[in-house]
Amino acid sequence: MKLDVRQIYEDIDKYMDQEIVIQGWIRNHRKQKEFGFIDFFDGTHFNTVQIVYDNSLEDFSTISKYRVGSAITVEGKMVKSPKEQQLFEVVARKVKLEGDSPEDYPIQPKRHTREFLREVAYLRPRTNLFQAVFRIRSLAAFAIHQYFNDRGYLYVHTPLITANDGEGAGEMFQVTTLDLEKIKDGKVDYSKDFFGKKVGLTVTGQLEGETMAMAFKKIYTFGPTFRAEKSNTKTHASEFWMIEPEIAFCDLNELMDIEEDMLKYIIKYVLTNAKYEYEMLDKYVEPGLVKKLTAFVDSEAARITHEEAINLLLSSGKNFEFTPMHGQDIAKEHEKFLTEHFNSPVFVKDWPKDIKAFYMKLNPDNKTVAAVDLLVPGSGELMGGSQREEDHDKLVARMKEMNVPEEDLWWYLNLRKFGGCYHSGFGMGFERLLMYITGIDNIRDVTLYARTPGNCEF
Amino acid sequence: MKLDVRQIYEDIDKYMDQEIVIQGWIRNHRKQKEFGFIDFFDGTHFNTVQIVYDNSLEDFSTISKYRVGSAITVEGKMVKSPKEQQLFEVVARKVKLEGDSPEDYPIQPKRHTREFLREVAYLRPRTNLFQAVFRIRSLAAFAIHQYFNDRGYLYVHTPLITANDGEGAGEMFQVTTLDLEKIKDGKVDYSKDFFGKKVGLTVTGQLEGETMAMAFKKIYTFGPTFRAEKSNTKTHASEFWMIEPEIAFCDLNELMDIEEDMLKYIIKYVLTNAKYEYEMLDKYVEPGLVKKLTAFVDSEAARITHEEAINLLLSSGKNFEFTPMHGQDIAKEHEKFLTEHFNSPVFVKDWPKDIKAFYMKLNPDNKTVAAVDLLVPGSGELMGGSQREEDHDKLVARMKEMNVPEEDLWWYLNLRKFGGCYHSGFGMGFERLLMYITGIDNIRDVTLYARTPGNCEF
Repeated sequence: MKLDVRQIYEDIDKYMDQEIVIQGWIRNHRKQKEFGFIDFFDGTHFNTVQIVYDNSLEDFSTISKYRVGSAITVEGKMVKSPKEQQLFEVVARKVKLEGDSPEDYPIQPKRHTREFLREVAYLRPRTNLFQAVFRIRSLAAFAIHQYFNDRGYLYVHTPLITANDGEGAGEMFQVTTLDLEKIKDGKVDYSKDFFGKKVGLTVTGQLEGETMAMAFKKIYTFGPTFRAEKSNTKTHASEFWMIEPEIAFCDLNELMDIEEDMLKYIIKYVLTNAKYEYEMLDKYVEPGLVKKLTAFVDSEAARITHEEAINLLLSSGKNFEFTPMHGQDIAKEHEKFLTEHFNSPVFVKDWPKDIKAFYMKLNPDNKTVAAVDLLVPGSGELMGGSQREEDHDKLVARMKEMNVPEEDLWWYLNLRKFGGCYHSGFGMGFERLLMYITGIDNIRDVTLYARTPGNCEF
Repeated sequence: MKLDVRQIYEDIDKYMDQEIVIQGWIRNHRKQKEFGFIDFFDGTHFNTVQIVYDNSLEDFSTISKYRVGSAITVEGKMVKSPKEQQLFEVVARKVKLEGDSPEDYPIQPKRHTREFLREVAYLRPRTNLFQAVFRIRSLAAFAIHQYFNDRGYLYVHTPLITANDGEGAGEMFQVTTLDLEKIKDGKVDYSKDFFGKKVGLTVTGQLEGETMAMAFKKIYTFGPTFRAEKSNTKTHASEFWMIEPEIAFCDLNELMDIEEDMLKYIIKYVLTNAKYEYEMLDKYVEPGLVKKLTAFVDSEAARITHEEAINLLLSSGKNFEFTPMHGQDIAKEHEKFLTEHFNSPVFVKDWPKDIKAFYMKLNPDNKTVAAVDLLVPGSGELMGGSQREEDHDKLVARMKEMNVPEEDLWWYLNLRKFGGCYHSGFGMGFERLLMYITGIDNIRDVTLYARTPGNCEF
């Protein structure tokens, strides 16, 4: 009976004393004169399986030479293990080599630095650390889909190639089929380009998402977005996945409720479904990680206004590198102070309008917008949301002020004419979430093959 | 109590005779002297809700002027409907206008052509047809995630910006941050480009997916892919979503089992969860749709070799525009004949090597590869899969034959050195699937904002 290791761990009793076939890889191999012990994994479960074989096997000496990293098929019997801490082992009747691995296989059973592992990024998923990270990534993605699907949200695929700059920040990659080597004197004829005009990679699916919220009430996107920003930091990548829910008939307070509820749901889901992975992360990556996450699930995120945040920072008595100022953005060090002060995620709302995007709803004070950022310990801003400006004329005025071209967004403006309503939405960077829930401090280590300035390998 | 229409339809008894608040849009509005009837939808359920109001309301005459398309908040009581076919209606105590809609609102309650609706693509999600299509799109996506998650597959996000051409077909969009208008005499300095080299948008996540299958055994991708192909047909888009599972220790027969099982799972899921949507599609879009899908779930897909397929075509006595030939590709008309002949989806396997990609496993006959296409009635090729060439030297030889640059794919080749194993995978175009399961015959009508040659609107 061919089994995944996951199936075995889910029902050990069922398979005990049964003949089974498992297929996977050698993580470690110890040989003695009469016995051999293979630490076996197949990637479907965090735990390895101990394979025991002895010299009664005809090809004992051949098997004993199988190297770390090799792919094997094992036929054998599941038995109770003599070792107390081990629930079972497999006594092999046959160990077939499916694919060899050379002496210089880079992933040996020892500690590797994360820097080294980035260089062999195509092999690092076979290590304990990345088995945990990518399993949690997959589980968290599923939790997100389940959360929204169960609540009647529509999952929407917004386009990635776009002719409009949704954030108005001008940090877009250009997409083209023009032959650059045929461009003479900078004369570019976009009528000859694939789409007949200049296009780029989207920085957000929000605006298109809003068109769907005006038809399905509750929608979310979950897809890649891009920033051609030359930031070489631990938290920036040029290509990353975003979740962007958009909800009609929803104000800023209801939005914060949804953000918090969703985040707690995801955390509970991964803590429950990645128990062994979390044991390891808690031990080797961020001591206290499980406690931090559990505490958040059991508590409430703080909610303060931007003004209150600045007052808190000013009265803290701390010497910040950047002095906190009313009307100004909040620096990393300030975010850190706030999350430590509350010892939990913190919603900061009602931001100065001049440092926020054009589509955010102007508050009655005419100075702030109904925007909210969620700051989390360790990875800073995790979600950014706002109530959207639903008043057509106010929105046009903001676009003029901020030099956002109206002609590209005629349809977005029209949403305010054809049955518009108050509505809100937020964006959550998926990799930022993963950093928070795994304790990994570099976005390159929660991404399969990260794209950053100067780096597009694999 | 604020409710989604979906919540009401899921438990009508629970809310009967209760005071409720619902928020959504006017699909239709009939006014009489003493009564008004609003056909109300909020996008969370396919069915509308009848709102009744009478002239005992203070603002009766104002309400009676609310136009089709307007957003409203309704407070009222759920009551049994006097009409037999209607399970309930809402007697309004208050109808508040949230957002007006002008006289010339394009989505009036009448039949619109799909061509017209494409022009107002940002509003068409509010029509019956697109409520059904996009709900099924969302449900099908969820079914896919659930299918794979339940079976222990890892969900993988492969990069979209890439320096390699995974299919070797050369139909990639280029991605750049170079200022095209500063290019002089075609001199392009890629060391100055964002990633320091020439990059483009991926045509497949398969190669990167294989690196993950060699660590997690069973993985799948579900993300956007791109083709800069100037095909202006009903089935081609330049940007579309693909599902690409990749399974270690899996041969071609097991792969077909997985493909068929997954497809049946998705179909059962949408038929169960989109009952009302399917009633409408079956009536107005593809008569017999539900029967077609149910029949497939209850039957088995045919499985034939490419050679058998050609023989079948040749002996059919049909006059094809393109004569079927051994060793050659199969045309649309041939696909159509085959699916009609078997009256079910058809797997065609063991294709001539010269018309297939470099990474497919060479069969012992040295002429064919272990590839399989699934053809489905109405949308032709739905999935393409293969066992992958796991032999390093044979793979290199194929790459040389087909001019696929080895230096870009050193890591892919290395997978055959470091614990490689027999493995298989397939790709399914998500929009093709949607065309098959909705009966919609144009890819532009299952995509929110389609990208096709010369077309990048919204």
